[in-house]
Amino acid sequence: MADDVNVTGMVESDPTIALTDRGLAYGDGLFETVLLRDGVARLWDEHCERLSQGAQRLGFEAPSRAWLDALPGKAPAGEHVLKITLTRGSGGRGYRPPLPAEPRCYWQFIPFTPMPERWVQGITVRLCRLRLACQPVLAGIKHLNRLENVLARQEWQDDTIAEGILLNDRDQLIEATAMNLAWHDQGRWWTPALTECGVEGTLRRALIERGHLSVADHAPLSRLLNSQSACLFNSVQGLWPIVMCHDADGHDTPGQWRIDEAVRCLQREAHTLLGHPPVLSTS
Amino acid sequence: MADDVNVTGMVESDPTIALTDRGLAYGDGLFETVLLRDGVARLWDEHCERLSQGAQRLGFEAPSRAWLDALPGKAPAGEHVLKITLTRGSGGRGYRPPLPAEPRCYWQFIPFTPMPERWVQGITVRLCRLRLACQPVLAGIKHLNRLENVLARQEWQDDTIAEGILLNDRDQLIEATAMNLAWHDQGRWWTPALTECGVEGTLRRALIERGHLSVADHAPLSRLLNSQSACLFNSVQGLWPIVMCHDADGHDTPGQWRIDEAVRCLQREAHTLLGHPPVLSTS
Repeated sequence: MADDVNVTGMVESDPTIALTDRGLAYGDGLFETVLLRDGVARLWDEHCERLSQGAQRLGFEAPSRAWLDALPGKAPAGEHVLKITLTRGSGGRGYRPPLPAEPRCYWQFIPFTPMPERWVQGITVRLCRLRLACQPVLAGIKHLNRLENVLARQEWQDDTIAEGILLNDRDQLIEATAMNLAWHDQGRWWTPALTECGVEGTLRRALIERGHLSVADHAPLSRLLNSQSACLFNSVQGLWPIVMCHDADGHDTPGQWRIDEAVRCLQREAHTLLGHPPVLSTS
Repeated sequence: MADDVNVTGMVESDPTIALTDRGLAYGDGLFETVLLRDGVARLWDEHCERLSQGAQRLGFEAPSRAWLDALPGKAPAGEHVLKITLTRGSGGRGYRPPLPAEPRCYWQFIPFTPMPERWVQGITVRLCRLRLACQPVLAGIKHLNRLENVLARQEWQDDTIAEGILLNDRDQLIEATAMNLAWHDQGRWWTPALTECGVEGTLRRALIERGHLSVADHAPLSRLLNSQSACLFNSVQGLWPIVMCHDADGHDTPGQWRIDEAVRCLQREAHTLLGHPPVLSTS
């Protein structure tokens, strides 16, 4: 990561951005949501790395690591989400980006309270009707073009449904609207490959690097439905076991998942990385 | 269109938006770029209709027609582009939209000078490397998730190339980065269907409604390369004849296009709708 990037327009507690910012005009930018506890960031390396890789993909410079490192310490005490929004800034002619760009980096601290009942009891999910489009150029990075996620999340209002599972337009498993997905079969935990669409979560990356998750290419829905246990996870909420899944019409799917030792084991690894409390087996 | 929608946060000459606006966070919104001459808008019905249809697709209310009708008259004298940006506003929980949303509508007047040399002499275009992803839920509307257009426009810096032709990931003709595409064969003008991706331009809609353009489904690149004449057009720039096309490596493609009477005829229809001057045949 460059250490000399000139990040203009830095906003500290400034609640507004320029109407001309390309982040608004075209979603021309990236974001990160980082778990903080008393000003200490979790999976910070992974977040900084993803931001940097995203900026490289879009063709502009991310702030230096030293600049980013100063952010978490500005947080108030307690648990917060640090939301970092990095845009290409203003300028250019229509879609054509300015050269060089003058990226802008904004941040917000959002108070956060975890949901331990979901850690313990697991969640009910649904299958989304929307299918993710395949766009390898944008896959994996956490860019600001998130209308698919918004429209998928808008499919249901029932608060007993915690999340929605997303397939791509080839009916392959990808992720949930705001979390990554894993299932357990053949004695291992699997998570979908994200080379065509989806967001590579930082917790997902950390669990793969530590050998706790394997990547499954082109996994059909049946892989999930036939698995013994399954879960959703991200770097803020931790790991939620899946116990039930409805289809898009609200009917039960044939899937049945147990909160077994495999789940608790992966959850312990995830929660250790995030500083969330371990969850004791209740069965 | 609703006449009673409460559009909060209206910005008149306010150059900033809230950092929490979902338009920035997720590209959760729409835009229009409208040609104005001395405060009079061109293709205004089409622009208002597309904005309204886009808002309906995303699930929030567009401003009333009466409210929109007050905008063009605020413009200074001369030629301008009125850029309208409509977002879902702030609020909600993550991707989950607030119910009801409190949409925000911003506008800017941008001075505009047309490029008559492109009307007369035509343009050289290139084939973009990027392939548009197929997402029927977002196809046609002018939403704020425009990273594909930005990345496609970023593929070239050579100012002698006026535009880039975009195919979808099934190698079918769709559009250019900021214009719609048409070609002439079998005695008619054809433009690609936009049910899977692409933006339905207002000039395109007006030309189809008046019987000047037919819609071609699943048209391969060869349809364009084998055509006698071809052009790009939008509601601001008018109609640019295509005379040459490079591939993504900068090599000529076999296509050869004439600026013939068919081109001048379609151009007259387009320019009449926009109030641009007619272009006399030079050949």
